[in-house]
Amino acid sequence: MDDIISKRKEKILEIIKKSEFIEYMDLEFVELDVEHALARIPFKSKFLNPYGSVHGGFLYSIADTVAGSLAAMDGVYCTTADGSLNFFEPAIDTEYVYCYAKCIRCGKHLVNVRVEIRDDNDKLLDDGSFNYFKLKGNPVLE
Amino acid sequence: MDDIISKRKEKILEIIKKSEFIEYMDLEFVELDVEHALARIPFKSKFLNPYGSVHGGFLYSIADTVAGSLAAMDGVYCTTADGSLNFFEPAIDTEYVYCYAKCIRCGKHLVNVRVEIRDDNDKLLDDGSFNYFKLKGNPVLE
Amino acid sequence: MDDIISKRKEKILEIIKKSEFIEYMDLEFVELDVEHALARIPFKSKFLNPYGSVHGGFLYSIADTVAGSLAAMDGVYCTTADGSLNFFEPAIDTEYVYCYAKCIRCGKHLVNVRVEIRDDNDKLLDDGSFNYFKLKGNPVLE
Amino acid sequence: MDDIISKRKEKILEIIKKSEFIEYMDLEFVELDVEHALARIPFKSKFLNPYGSVHGGFLYSIADTVAGSLAAMDGVYCTTADGSLNFFEPAIDTEYVYCYAKCIRCGKHLVNVRVEIRDDNDKLLDDGSFNYFKLKGNPVLE
Repeated sequence: MDDIISKRKEKILEIIKKSEFIEYMDLEFVELDVEHALARIPFKSKFLNPYGSVHGGFLYSIADTVAGSLAAMDGVYCTTADGSLNFFEPAIDTEYVYCYAKCIRCGKHLVNVRVEIRDDNDKLLDDGSFNYFKLKGNPVLE
Repeated sequence: MDDIISKRKEKILEIIKKSEFIEYMDLEFVELDVEHALARIPFKSKFLNPYGSVHGGFLYSIADTVAGSLAAMDGVYCTTADGSLNFFEPAIDTEYVYCYAKCIRCGKHLVNVRVEIRDDNDKLLDDGSFNYFKLKGNPVLE
Repeated sequence: MDDIISKRKEKILEIIKKSEFIEYMDLEFVELDVEHALARIPFKSKFLNPYGSVHGGFLYSIADTVAGSLAAMDGVYCTTADGSLNFFEPAIDTEYVYCYAKCIRCGKHLVNVRVEIRDDNDKLLDDGSFNYFKLKGNPVLE
Repeated sequence: MDDIISKRKEKILEIIKKSEFIEYMDLEFVELDVEHALARIPFKSKFLNPYGSVHGGFLYSIADTVAGSLAAMDGVYCTTADGSLNFFEPAIDTEYVYCYAKCIRCGKHLVNVRVEIRDDNDKLLDDGSFNYFKLKGNPVLE
């Protein structure tokens, strides 16, 4: 990872710490590069729905946070234009929940990121697609 | 609202209280009927993204919770199959954030709910569509 | 409808005629204004899937054409960023298939249009959401 | 490919030939297995939008047809529940347009298929996600 990419990563991870809701997520980034990101959360009762699995909206929150961080790695902050998530299996009986994000297309104005949510056994739980709009006037590094 | 509908509503509102994440939402239901639901959250710092507006994933969480509660008003619990949200404007400078849900189609197996997120001035902030799969073996009222 | 809106409509209807695939659609516009559009197609065997109802992709094609025409009524041509369609009921046993489009949000760069597909009896068959990106350099009227 | 899979493939390819709209597509299947499918169309003027690239709805039509054929390879016919497509680049200046479909999740009732549209140079043009509902009473092979 070259120097500028490394500085962007540092800045983005610093910025997202300012959010109380992201703090609540206990999100731990394992990787944050230009094309991929990987983060995980511990399985905790504070994330659960009434059925005892991680709330779908909470999984979407993680997905959007990881995908949005990845989108910003191109150099400018982004706003979520739209995002969808397919729910396949409940996130339950796992120590961690993993979120993989891959930059599918980084255009001039729009960035598309695909997200996969997986459990400890690498089972695919959810799969989604997020579109971000680049805020050209807001570079990650001034 | 007839008696059975009223009992379903009571049961669903009781069930969702079991979720720690829904508790975190401070969600207040104004209406929960068979075809419509309306709920609101107060604007609080614990919901915010790094830019000071309500986190998009948090808005999706509210949307999924309200839409899923509405879907269950047909009489059986549901699991979210997929859901997408279009983000138009940041949820900021508002005392409450409102979530309107409307049952668009209640089929034999699938239920579609459309959601609108609005602010104090009734400005449309986000608009989404959620598909639920009915869990036939799990009636709301035994 | 004031003069400039009327001229935009005329130009857009003229432009879409240049498309051989749109010609195949036999699409008839009933209304094309700034906020709403309505068009219909006759039920014909050339539109059908193997089950005898209108092919879902064909319905999406109509939806995208009508919604995209509506999006351009703001004054600039648009490109489809993404679009999704929920399929509820087959389009069958109907003389016409109607497509209603409503502009949900017309932003600086992105336009969101919601689409409903209905049959002769006004039954809701499909419901979708399309996002368009404005091509600022391509005004409808020079 | 074992015998039953081979017979399903043969039956599905026979069934889709009954559709006049699929006939219009000039769709040529290169592969149709249980987990993957690949098909292509020639670039023809009858598929184009007013800008001279393949109409987005037409690309969606191909995607839905290929993904739906793949979904049926599990053994029962399916109906499209919903499908979304992200449009990245116009399908233009290419001899063929390729559609890759991958079964992401084959559940008891729902099947999710991811689709990629690519050109001659393997450039990713579009990316989508389709959800199918299994018609349990309609096996591909009686």
